[in-house]
Parts: sequence; structure tokens; C-alpha cells
Amino acid sequence: MNTETLLEELFHAKIPITGDMQISIARYDGKTLVLEAPLEPNINDKGTAFGGSLFSLLVLSGWGLLHLKLREAGVNADLMIHKSSATYTLPVTDRIRARCELPDTPEHERFIHDVQSRGRGTIKLTACIMIGTRTAVEFMGTYVAKTTSG
Amino acid sequence: MNTETLLEELFHAKIPITGDMQISIARYDGKTLVLEAPLEPNINDKGTAFGGSLFSLLVLSGWGLLHLKLREAGVNADLMIHKSSATYTLPVTDRIRARCELPDTPEHERFIHDVQSRGRGTIKLTACIMIGTRTAVEFMGTYVAKTTSG
Repeated sequence: MNTETLLEELFHAKIPITGDMQISIARYDGKTLVLEAPLEPNINDKGTAFGGSLFSLLVLSGWGLLHLKLREAGVNADLMIHKSSATYTLPVTDRIRARCELPDTPEHERFIHDVQSRGRGTIKLTACIMIGTRTAVEFMGTYVAKTTSG
Repeated sequence: MNTETLLEELFHAKIPITGDMQISIARYDGKTLVLEAPLEPNINDKGTAFGGSLFSLLVLSGWGLLHLKLREAGVNADLMIHKSSATYTLPVTDRIRARCELPDTPEHERFIHDVQSRGRGTIKLTACIMIGTRTAVEFMGTYVAKTTSG
């Protein structure tokens, strides 16, 4: 089974609300993770995407990306969101697509190294939801990973 | 039908994911709105509440409170989240309870007045999820309301 399918199964098995939201993995290339969900199960009173659903896709795009990087490094760790900020600029009126990309800096290598050597690491990631070339929602999240015995 | 039931029905009818999350209105006293949801449909890979669900309850506690204040003032307005920040300090391992209270300042009166007189208002609210006397998640949200013809 490929990485995308495994991550999607993990989401739906371990975080059941992602199944109700119909979240799927659109793309993973080792550096960028793109999650998608249809509008309908995530709609709000204005016929646009609910802010809570947009946030869930954004926070999971970062979480999923780090989960995959930790797994590729052979590290078993619990990964949690610690701080977040989000700015909603445009309403999302169609399929939701959240994208998180690792920074160009060696930041995520330091993060993986810290988790491996000290049992704990933190990293800040940005993610976004675009409508065409325009940013609809911008997200910044600080994640913490702690090694487990698993 | 009382205010709590009407708001709960609005959530479930217009924002269907709130039904999957099993969100209910625990309390509204004209100044404070408390929303609740069971852990099970909102659980994550660590057996605690998913950060996206916690965020959804927090953002809706502010949204619901402002929706009720606008309705009490006889104002028809679309209400949207514009900016948010959240800090997750403790994992939530039981029933989720999000609480938003109007500030003591006349801030919300200015907000209602702006929406009534100019057709648009913004307001910043804080909300939280407590575990006993300890804060598990702190939320700050800036909301925008725009009058509708409805």
C-alpha cells in the first residue's frame, strides 16, 4: 500500500471525524502534503466551508507531513499541535485543498534530530488553503513530538 | 422552543459536521455560552480529543454567542471568523466543554451598534476549554458580521 493510502487509513481509523469530513490525501512528494475534502460535509450556514473544518484540514496537513517524516526516519513519536494561528481571508466555496510544505531551511532535520537524540522536538510549519492563485486561509502551527516506546 | 435548542438545531441543520461531532449547547445565560461534545466521535490517535475538534467547539462557542446577541438585537447578519489563535496546553481526555463569555467592557454593544448602523462590525473574543480549574486550550478569535437583507 502506498504512503498516501496508509496515511488516509490512519486518519480515518484513529481520528474518526476525518472520515465524516471525507478527508483524503491528494498528494505527498516527500516535502509537501496536500489534503482534500469535499465542501458538502463541511458546509456552513453561508453555504461555504466551515472554519472549523478548514482548520482541521490545515492542522492535519502539518501533522500528516511530520508524521510521515518521523516514520521515514524510523522514529516512533506522539505528535501534537501546541500553538496555532489562522487568518481567514476568502470564503471557500468549492472542494477544500490544504497544503503544507516543509521549510527550505534544515529546520525539519533539526526537529527529527532533536526527537531522536533528546526524545522531544518542536517545529513551526505554515500551511494554506488556496483558491486558484489567491490565499483563502493561512495557518501557522507549532508542533511537538515526544518519543514513545512503541 | 428555548434558545439552547434553537441554536443546537441551527448548528446541526446548517453546519452538518457539528452533528457528527455531537455538539450540544450546555448553557446560555445571555452572557456566556458553553458548548459540549463527547470525546468518542472527536478522538485522535492518542486517545485524546482531536485538535481540530477542540478548535471547532471553541470557534463555535464565540460564533454562537455573537449569533444569539445579534438575534436578540433584531439584526440579520452573516457572521464569520476572520482571525484566530489557539494554545493547546493539556490533552483533553474526557467530555469536551468550550466556554465563551462576553467581555465586561461595552465592546459587544459597540459591535452590535456598528453592525446596525454601518452594516458591518468586528469583535475579538476569547474562549477556553477547561479541565477542572486548569486551562487545556485557550482561544482568541476575531469575528466579522455583515448585515444581510434577510
